[in-house]
Amino acid sequence: MRTVITGGTVVNATGRALADVVVDDELITAVTTPGLVTGADRTIDATGKYVIPGGIDAHTHMEMPFGGTFSNDTFATGTTAAAWGGTTTIIDFAVQARGTSLLSTLDTWHAKADGNCAVDYGFHMIISEVDDHSLKEMQPCIDAGVNSFKMFMAYPGVFYSTDGDILRAMQQARATGSMVMMHAENGIAIDQLVAQALAEGRTAPVEHSITRPPELEGEATSRAIALAKVTGSPLYIVHLSARHALEAVAAARDTGQNVFAETCPQYLYLSIENMAEPDFNGAKYVASPPLRSKDHQADLWRGLRTNDLSVVSTDHCPFCFKDQKELGRDDFSKIPNGIPGVEHRMDLLHQGVVTGEITLERWVEVCSTTPARMFGLHGRKGVIAPGADADVVVYDPAAKQTISALTHHMNVDYSAYEGLEITGAVETVLSRGAVVIAAGEFHGKPGHGRFLKRDLSQYLV
Amino acid sequence: MRTVITGGTVVNATGRALADVVVDDELITAVTTPGLVTGADRTIDATGKYVIPGGIDAHTHMEMPFGGTFSNDTFATGTTAAAWGGTTTIIDFAVQARGTSLLSTLDTWHAKADGNCAVDYGFHMIISEVDDHSLKEMQPCIDAGVNSFKMFMAYPGVFYSTDGDILRAMQQARATGSMVMMHAENGIAIDQLVAQALAEGRTAPVEHSITRPPELEGEATSRAIALAKVTGSPLYIVHLSARHALEAVAAARDTGQNVFAETCPQYLYLSIENMAEPDFNGAKYVASPPLRSKDHQADLWRGLRTNDLSVVSTDHCPFCFKDQKELGRDDFSKIPNGIPGVEHRMDLLHQGVVTGEITLERWVEVCSTTPARMFGLHGRKGVIAPGADADVVVYDPAAKQTISALTHHMNVDYSAYEGLEITGAVETVLSRGAVVIAAGEFHGKPGHGRFLKRDLSQYLV
Amino acid sequence: MRTVITGGTVVNATGRALADVVVDDELITAVTTPGLVTGADRTIDATGKYVIPGGIDAHTHMEMPFGGTFSNDTFATGTTAAAWGGTTTIIDFAVQARGTSLLSTLDTWHAKADGNCAVDYGFHMIISEVDDHSLKEMQPCIDAGVNSFKMFMAYPGVFYSTDGDILRAMQQARATGSMVMMHAENGIAIDQLVAQALAEGRTAPVEHSITRPPELEGEATSRAIALAKVTGSPLYIVHLSARHALEAVAAARDTGQNVFAETCPQYLYLSIENMAEPDFNGAKYVASPPLRSKDHQADLWRGLRTNDLSVVSTDHCPFCFKDQKELGRDDFSKIPNGIPGVEHRMDLLHQGVVTGEITLERWVEVCSTTPARMFGLHGRKGVIAPGADADVVVYDPAAKQTISALTHHMNVDYSAYEGLEITGAVETVLSRGAVVIAAGEFHGKPGHGRFLKRDLSQYLV
Amino acid sequence: MRTVITGGTVVNATGRALADVVVDDELITAVTTPGLVTGADRTIDATGKYVIPGGIDAHTHMEMPFGGTFSNDTFATGTTAAAWGGTTTIIDFAVQARGTSLLSTLDTWHAKADGNCAVDYGFHMIISEVDDHSLKEMQPCIDAGVNSFKMFMAYPGVFYSTDGDILRAMQQARATGSMVMMHAENGIAIDQLVAQALAEGRTAPVEHSITRPPELEGEATSRAIALAKVTGSPLYIVHLSARHALEAVAAARDTGQNVFAETCPQYLYLSIENMAEPDFNGAKYVASPPLRSKDHQADLWRGLRTNDLSVVSTDHCPFCFKDQKELGRDDFSKIPNGIPGVEHRMDLLHQGVVTGEITLERWVEVCSTTPARMFGLHGRKGVIAPGADADVVVYDPAAKQTISALTHHMNVDYSAYEGLEITGAVETVLSRGAVVIAAGEFHGKPGHGRFLKRDLSQYLV
Ligand SMILES: [Zn+2]
Ligand SMILES: [Zn+2]
Ligand SMILES: [Zn+2]
Ligand SMILES: [Zn+2]
Ligand SMILES: [Zn+2]
Ligand SMILES: [Zn+2]
Ligand SMILES: [Zn+2]
Ligand SMILES: [Zn+2]
Repeated sequence: MRTVITGGTVVNATGRALADVVVDDELITAVTTPGLVTGADRTIDATGKYVIPGGIDAHTHMEMPFGGTFSNDTFATGTTAAAWGGTTTIIDFAVQARGTSLLSTLDTWHAKADGNCAVDYGFHMIISEVDDHSLKEMQPCIDAGVNSFKMFMAYPGVFYSTDGDILRAMQQARATGSMVMMHAENGIAIDQLVAQALAEGRTAPVEHSITRPPELEGEATSRAIALAKVTGSPLYIVHLSARHALEAVAAARDTGQNVFAETCPQYLYLSIENMAEPDFNGAKYVASPPLRSKDHQADLWRGLRTNDLSVVSTDHCPFCFKDQKELGRDDFSKIPNGIPGVEHRMDLLHQGVVTGEITLERWVEVCSTTPARMFGLHGRKGVIAPGADADVVVYDPAAKQTISALTHHMNVDYSAYEGLEITGAVETVLSRGAVVIAAGEFHGKPGHGRFLKRDLSQYLV
Repeated sequence: MRTVITGGTVVNATGRALADVVVDDELITAVTTPGLVTGADRTIDATGKYVIPGGIDAHTHMEMPFGGTFSNDTFATGTTAAAWGGTTTIIDFAVQARGTSLLSTLDTWHAKADGNCAVDYGFHMIISEVDDHSLKEMQPCIDAGVNSFKMFMAYPGVFYSTDGDILRAMQQARATGSMVMMHAENGIAIDQLVAQALAEGRTAPVEHSITRPPELEGEATSRAIALAKVTGSPLYIVHLSARHALEAVAAARDTGQNVFAETCPQYLYLSIENMAEPDFNGAKYVASPPLRSKDHQADLWRGLRTNDLSVVSTDHCPFCFKDQKELGRDDFSKIPNGIPGVEHRMDLLHQGVVTGEITLERWVEVCSTTPARMFGLHGRKGVIAPGADADVVVYDPAAKQTISALTHHMNVDYSAYEGLEITGAVETVLSRGAVVIAAGEFHGKPGHGRFLKRDLSQYLV
Repeated sequence: MRTVITGGTVVNATGRALADVVVDDELITAVTTPGLVTGADRTIDATGKYVIPGGIDAHTHMEMPFGGTFSNDTFATGTTAAAWGGTTTIIDFAVQARGTSLLSTLDTWHAKADGNCAVDYGFHMIISEVDDHSLKEMQPCIDAGVNSFKMFMAYPGVFYSTDGDILRAMQQARATGSMVMMHAENGIAIDQLVAQALAEGRTAPVEHSITRPPELEGEATSRAIALAKVTGSPLYIVHLSARHALEAVAAARDTGQNVFAETCPQYLYLSIENMAEPDFNGAKYVASPPLRSKDHQADLWRGLRTNDLSVVSTDHCPFCFKDQKELGRDDFSKIPNGIPGVEHRMDLLHQGVVTGEITLERWVEVCSTTPARMFGLHGRKGVIAPGADADVVVYDPAAKQTISALTHHMNVDYSAYEGLEITGAVETVLSRGAVVIAAGEFHGKPGHGRFLKRDLSQYLV
Repeated sequence: MRTVITGGTVVNATGRALADVVVDDELITAVTTPGLVTGADRTIDATGKYVIPGGIDAHTHMEMPFGGTFSNDTFATGTTAAAWGGTTTIIDFAVQARGTSLLSTLDTWHAKADGNCAVDYGFHMIISEVDDHSLKEMQPCIDAGVNSFKMFMAYPGVFYSTDGDILRAMQQARATGSMVMMHAENGIAIDQLVAQALAEGRTAPVEHSITRPPELEGEATSRAIALAKVTGSPLYIVHLSARHALEAVAAARDTGQNVFAETCPQYLYLSIENMAEPDFNGAKYVASPPLRSKDHQADLWRGLRTNDLSVVSTDHCPFCFKDQKELGRDDFSKIPNGIPGVEHRMDLLHQGVVTGEITLERWVEVCSTTPARMFGLHGRKGVIAPGADADVVVYDPAAKQTISALTHHMNVDYSAYEGLEITGAVETVLSRGAVVIAAGEFHGKPGHGRFLKRDLSQYLV
């Protein structure tokens, strides 16, 4: 089965060209000057469109347990929404529950995803309990294609790891060539501020941001970097939201240390002002780290340009406003943490191209190419090149759309970007050669998406 | 005429893959999974080899007038040597003589190069005299494909521009979208140090370095950055040699300013110790900025990893030891400035891959992809992709060679790297589809190389 | 003749104490617990008042030639105004005219000041022409008690020194143990901006600031620091106005380099908004460096707290609005540069104590103690201690005053601080034991003030 | 009873002068030109000597419980040794044992010191247990003259406070105007490194330094600074040993934050090489933070010059080699932590004057004046001025001495500086007017020294 996508502008991270993309079965087999390869079973006309590697969202939480509830997207609904938005790979987090092993955790997550995904997926592993057993299990996890291990400097009593735990895990990461991912907020100090706020009757959603000041994200980021320096481990800061943290990352990167960071669309477009919206509406934006004051946004866009922020992921973690977010009506600390977003990352970042914040190539790089290289998918994903999986998006740069919960495909009853007008839209999406989105319809099916055994990071210096 | 390069590992800046490269006449027309495209008139077996975009040396000086003599490579000999070393594009400097116009200068340089080059070439323009006329000529130069303008903060009375000159030229660069390149050394202060050295009878080659301390390169670099900030002009620092300058560049880049820098192989491999070699041998290494103490080398390699150094060029400027370098036997300030190197840049940087300083992809990026994007050749050069010129190098990563003047092809009687053992060697070189190097023989011919009208930089953020 | 100042709070740079100050003739001979020394010929009751060392204004321009006119205070009127404001020492600038020698310049300035000053005075020397002769004259100047040499990176064609000149003078400063003072603005680049503004018909006073952007003060400051680093010379940045320059100074000081800076009250209290006042009123504030946007003020106050700014001087240089400032009605570049201020420095900085910007001790330190140590007057001036000259101010911290040209004693027809309300006022001033200000009357006389042969700086690290 | 110290050079932090110091009973009552005040009951000839304020050692541990033993100096022996060394005030640490209150701790320490001290003393309070009760007790401690509270980021399970504890204590410090002192090492991570070393059989004293890398002191210092920023608390970093920490302090101080640091003579003179001395000799140097590689020393001296290090204290904590240090023969982690030094701080820092590291005035400032201002003793201690306690040292700058356990007066069987030759020696010491050291004899007596109720810090900006 040969598909040829013809007439479009192929955009890779390092440039663009008018070219045809030849797909045979599941793989891209050629990129050619227009018309060179013939014999197509199916031809997709991409004239006037961008032909880009499918998006890779390296940070999602489908069906994630959190405080007694679950994030509302299953792997089925979540990967379908991803496909709608031009994202053809997600890397979700398997979450070690305390008292369980990493490998059994992995089994659990495989069971959730297997047979349900519309697009390909991989896993990171969240280590909630650092002990000899967990550390020994890192290598079998790596052998199973899960070689990035997330730890938390926040959420004491839940996911929190001590600096000693982190040190040990980083030593093991260094020894195995794997990557430590860090939720970098000083949760120990934050918990005091939260307790003080509640004791003083400050219970509204906006307090979630006030009690998690950006200095404490900057601090934790610096600390993680220092531990990475001592151990020689690579470090990937997830969901960086504050200039304070960005400065720490930039300083480390100037020294050539293997320190990387991602940010998320919500930190580029939303702010603490949203969290102060009336009628408990602010709860929709409660996530950690929290939304910051607006002046951080320009710094984050600049970080994307300077590559001090290398990746944009969503931290997609959808909780419905009704029944879920509402759990925290009287106590912001009980609001489930998370913002839905897997469907709109490509669009929101393309909007940054429209407004001149980033170049077209950089859009592809931060949304697809670098995530692939960072997480061991290079050659398979993140690039329009022969031999790669035929995860291809035809993107219409001139289309107009308005984001709304009425029209989105994520299984959640609100949109954090309700009413936002975007220039650009996904037109056609191929996942490993299969058309999953075309002409405004979903043609995919659960189970098409396969688990990706990932190689070690190809982005280290 | 179809050529297929088959069986090799195609290396681009963002990754590598086993793939065939299809060349039809002068262009790459396809990159495919092995065997997909047939009908080759010529097949080049690249099994076990790298297939990379031809090198781009963005800083050479062929037949350059300097202090009454000329650099010893003509465009014919110099581009032939380049081809031998896997460099298929050079960007040379047209040098405005005071009292002449930019456009007539361009004519002069076209006359030197036209019909003589073995590989493609472009020009930067050196502005030696900033006045209303020169500034007005920038736009016609740009229209003629020469859109990068080099200025000097050194060489008072020769190439030197005042800060006011630089400010004005940068304003014009900003207005026209072009780039200012800067030789950043404080020549005014340096000239005092030189005069003092000579007055004290310190005349040996090593004094060339002593009288040009790295602080004065750092200072000039900072100054150029400040002027670029005030005017909004992009800035490209040529031949950065010192950590002091690198720190200034890194700080500016952290702010998102369009500031870039290149370094050269001599600063990565040689040091002031070479300049102190006996029997006037140190004269072989006299160039400006000078070779530094060895401890700068690690910083420069790190800069290449962090992309604070984005390009490696050679500043190839060959003067023979006999008769030319010897002009300065009694006075180091009379030694013609320049080191030959156009032939060995690709090898010397590949050696950095061998020793673990940079990755394979980064080698391609700094030697080819980024120079192409930086200087408006993107899509045509610097990438193995359909539509690009078929400038392709088959590189044998396992070959061994020893650099020597006895075997090199540059028209100069010594090598700065005499006796250095390198792992890796160029095997086959195509320039716009024509085989110019194969099986240890040169098959090119003068005049094959064409002038490249360059677009504006595609690397700005 | 014994005077005892009794009952006050003696404030030195490192602390305060209730103590009596005993003055015998011209010297402080004892600081004692109250009442210890008796036998006073005169007793000054300082109950409830501060007793501080007389202010030292290390940067004034009396009778300074500038663009065909002279600053309007003579040494007589200017030092009288200083005394009114609690300043008992000024260090003025002797200005080498091109074509004249340093020593003859010094003679000229001695002739202006000798017999005319109400308080003690010293000189810095402005070197306008760096040549062998001038450099050789530095040592005789030092022997004559003038050991700080100001140079200009601005005012091309007038005071401007090239970087080569600066390098040579700094080498000589290093060799002689003397200090280089620097007016750090990139005048070469600024002149282009000025010419462009005038060519475009932008002639109003505010253009004076717009054409001298803070980046070009920061740049020149960095450059001066680099040259000082290369030569090993101490460096004192005069009249620092911009955060850009402050950052450069702070960075150098963190390395332990002997780099110091002063700011002036106008940069702490006034801004570019004043320069935009209608009816040419902005001309009153034209000085170089220019007034900056308001956000620089907080940074400068912080610099005073961190000691990155070590001294507050006035750069007192009074030109009347009428006839003098008006010379530039049609061309801002013709407005004589300078702001009057010698009379109000102590009050304006005390106001910083009132508003909590600096401590009481720091007030004394930046206005008196550090200038004394910086410029070789330690032990004689700047401290209430036995052996020191009895330059003593009794300052009433509770008095209220309003600054106005109607009441000030400077010989100039406007005040830059017209209408500003201040808490605190000078009550009594002794100059070398003589009461010059008391009970709202001036009791001094021209010629009382003596020339101060200064020692080498006592502030170097 | 009147004593006059005559003929000496009185050195204060901001200058020196030939002057007499008049002492009436316990107080300095006058500083005068020589001979002004007569009627002395006792005259001390200080001709050719320095007359300086008695040293203030703001960090000592007398009779401190540590791991089942006690530091070997009592308040009697320790303060006597201090007096021998020209230190007339110590501030020791009261150590809250877990489960006890701050106020009862204070009682315990008063009981140890009361009636035993040869010179004056104050207390800091170590908070080992942060809870509502301890936080409430901070104000009564402050009222009792103990207003600086030390916390530990090291020693988990013993003194360790969590970041939440620190946050709360800093909030209380902010509210009460008091100071938080921090032992800044990441003890949680360090404990892992220690456990790993022991598990691998690495048990020698030098491992104490290897398992406490300087990065983990830098990290903790940064973290403490961030928490201080969030809370608005002043912060004083004790015993800073590493450049990594110094850089963090310097950066914070550049922003004007109230962050201060002390270093200790052992970090200026000794290094990890000492810890590797054979025959378990390295145990003599075991303290925390540990001795570093030699290259840190120059940075620390520079920090003293730039005032990024404001104070030199000793962290005097003497454990005998025999029986005490020997507890750790088979396990470095069991070696009692501490180095004796209270007797030699003034000499060791004067040696820095001799070698040109610091100026004479700076010696007095870091050893006496700043500690007094930092810890609320200004006006009483740290200055030669009327009204101050007559704590005066006559110091002979030309004397020669060799440090040795054979001659020292500390109650410990070794010297960390054995055999070190020093230029300069204490000649005469007055404590509140009483001669305690003269002509090589001790004339003091236990109980002369009084407890100092300290005011709030007078050093904040
Ligand atoms: Zn997280
Ligand atoms: Zn997450
Ligand atoms: Zn050059
Ligand atoms: Zn060149
Ligand atoms: Zn000036
Ligand atoms: Zn001036
Ligand atoms: Zn400690
Ligand atoms: Zn201690």
